[in-house]
Amino acid sequence: MTTAHPRLSINQATIKYANLADALQLTATAGVQSIGLWREPVAEVGLQNATRMVADSGLRVSSLCRGGFFTAFEGPARRAAIDENRRAIDESAALAAAGAAGSAPVLVLVAGGLPDRSTDLIGARSRVAEAIAELVPDAQAAGVTLAIEPLHPMYAADRAVISTLGQALDIAEPFPASSVGVVVDTFHIWWDPEVLTQIERAGAAGRIASYQVCDFLTPIPSDALLARGMMGDGHVDFRSLTRAITATGYAGDVEVEIFNAEIWDTEPAEVVARTVDAFAACIPLALP
Amino acid sequence: MTTAHPRLSINQATIKYANLADALQLTATAGVQSIGLWREPVAEVGLQNATRMVADSGLRVSSLCRGGFFTAFEGPARRAAIDENRRAIDESAALAAAGAAGSAPVLVLVAGGLPDRSTDLIGARSRVAEAIAELVPDAQAAGVTLAIEPLHPMYAADRAVISTLGQALDIAEPFPASSVGVVVDTFHIWWDPEVLTQIERAGAAGRIASYQVCDFLTPIPSDALLARGMMGDGHVDFRSLTRAITATGYAGDVEVEIFNAEIWDTEPAEVVARTVDAFAACIPLALP
Repeated sequence: MTTAHPRLSINQATIKYANLADALQLTATAGVQSIGLWREPVAEVGLQNATRMVADSGLRVSSLCRGGFFTAFEGPARRAAIDENRRAIDESAALAAAGAAGSAPVLVLVAGGLPDRSTDLIGARSRVAEAIAELVPDAQAAGVTLAIEPLHPMYAADRAVISTLGQALDIAEPFPASSVGVVVDTFHIWWDPEVLTQIERAGAAGRIASYQVCDFLTPIPSDALLARGMMGDGHVDFRSLTRAITATGYAGDVEVEIFNAEIWDTEPAEVVARTVDAFAACIPLALP
Repeated sequence: MTTAHPRLSINQATIKYANLADALQLTATAGVQSIGLWREPVAEVGLQNATRMVADSGLRVSSLCRGGFFTAFEGPARRAAIDENRRAIDESAALAAAGAAGSAPVLVLVAGGLPDRSTDLIGARSRVAEAIAELVPDAQAAGVTLAIEPLHPMYAADRAVISTLGQALDIAEPFPASSVGVVVDTFHIWWDPEVLTQIERAGAAGRIASYQVCDFLTPIPSDALLARGMMGDGHVDFRSLTRAITATGYAGDVEVEIFNAEIWDTEPAEVVARTVDAFAACIPLALP
């Protein structure tokens, strides 16, 4: 049995059907030291119970997924989204405080897609930047980093109008790096001709809030959200991307986040074991 | 009935199941003045017959699809691809010469995907650039423009390692604009945060060899190649993209190229009629 890398974190979405208690237990039992949490399974048990369970697990918390969805036009729906993100900021702070030393109060943000029947991509992007500006004081007060995650351009219409690391960094730039950073997720950015330069830029600015790894599979399945695969099963060059991340001095946890129907249907303990192996084989991190 | 815009060109792929004779006739009958051809239906009748049919149709030829697929490692498969592209260059010259005045000897190039089991995207991109360098003398001799088409990043693994207009322009840059240009296809590049800047750059360098329009639909269908839709049915902002193209001084034909199962199953004459209407409604070209 492979020993889990000390910086490996299991993002809860990889074992989607496990509840929080099971996810924490499976992760710890496998010798993995860190977990990336999602708001929904936390809400199932309530934040107070969740923080206690996290503390008892002895695991680090590497991030909370997810906030964002900032593209609505001004009005009640937009206000509700901003308020929801304020709650997510507080949850992120509480969960990271409950986690073991080295936990990261990082809230992952997905930008949101184009509003219904709108094709104004540039306007939608502006509204994302405005929402983040509005939330920065809350993030600063809570000691939380808002982590903008560029998503693959195939989701630009319906999920995230922020498609590249360069764009995410442009939005982050006006704010302190402790409050606004970026997520580097190999699945979303591996194809980008500027990816290595932008990773370097992100690192130099101290803005790599999270490094997430999973592979890009073809053919893209009928639910395009589920094209993610275990490292080594697809087309991503983890070596060059991980080296670029390491070269910036990034020393945080590395999350494995995989949305994949077949993986979700596999026994979670087996998924965690396979993740430990694939991580060891494919992610050439320098020793911590 | 809407009058067809004088710069509208029907790309043959939009009426995929029509043979060359029918495609030419349907296009001309609808009052459309230009057609984008594909090599396969040309090969069905033979090049010599095809040039005669094109001349008889009175239509312009706006491009020939397609060459490329340049990512194979050195060896017989790569040599075969290069030779095939030499034949495609000659076909492009012959078909444009047979078309009405204003025809464009433009060969559309699709880069090709990663070789089997390779994740070396950077290496694959280099081989594309090398193949183009090798073909430039042939293109020059034939008076043909090689038009590099960046494809949507969702095809980066299995179809085209060139994903952005910026990348395509970088590859084109060392060569005369008459020999190497780019295809601006709204479906592939609408999401790109740098798209307007790169269209301006392409225009300033005289490298817009083809402007193709179709919409981007969601959800992405199970065959991801078929996510294209009629203009107005999806998420693309044709207004801003077309204005950027027009602002460069581009005055060539504008091809409608749609891969879509439902459109392919519709009577081709009806598809052409709908295309004429959607083009008039959605593509704000300055008067020619």
